[in-house]
Amino acid sequence: MSNFRHVVLFRWAEGTTTGQAEEVASRLSALAGVIPEVGSLSIGTDAGVNPGNFDFVVVGDFASKDDYVAYRDHPAHRAVIDEFIKPILAERAAIQYEHGA
Amino acid sequence: MSNFRHVVLFRWAEGTTTGQAEEVASRLSALAGVIPEVGSLSIGTDAGVNPGNFDFVVVGDFASKDDYVAYRDHPAHRAVIDEFIKPILAERAAIQYEHGA
Repeated sequence: MSNFRHVVLFRWAEGTTTGQAEEVASRLSALAGVIPEVGSLSIGTDAGVNPGNFDFVVVGDFASKDDYVAYRDHPAHRAVIDEFIKPILAERAAIQYEHGA
Repeated sequence: MSNFRHVVLFRWAEGTTTGQAEEVASRLSALAGVIPEVGSLSIGTDAGVNPGNFDFVVVGDFASKDDYVAYRDHPAHRAVIDEFIKPILAERAAIQYEHGA
């Protein structure tokens, strides 16, 4: 069904607390209930298997590129970025791609 | 079923050809048939929606952390990394995480 995937990795700034990272996870998870274009959001924190990894990941599956863009630009999403992610963000890596069924 | 996810993003060096990137995709895709611990590998190239993105992504789903580590360390996987990825790699971002059912 969903065939457009958004992947973003975050590395948090030094001094970021577990509570701050959990707040981001909680706020992003809530978006699935607010933005109808979201197919699914898989959110996780690094398992600690390999050194040098990023800290936090979001994999979002959408039915189309347009649905992803609706999520990207939705005010509720922008608010989470501005209020909870940017204040603790050190580094970001992202990609979107067509995802075979 | 699969509940341990590996996500890696690559940015290719300047001058990397489409053919070289396609070779990486082809070689990685073939690993699913060679390494029994692989649940699934979703491989993609950036859709060009946003500036500043990475170029290439692999999302691997595994039944367990141990299965991921078996893939990570498998000689056939290391050979793809050494022979096809490292020669064109500019930047890498990775994470592994527990992925809810």
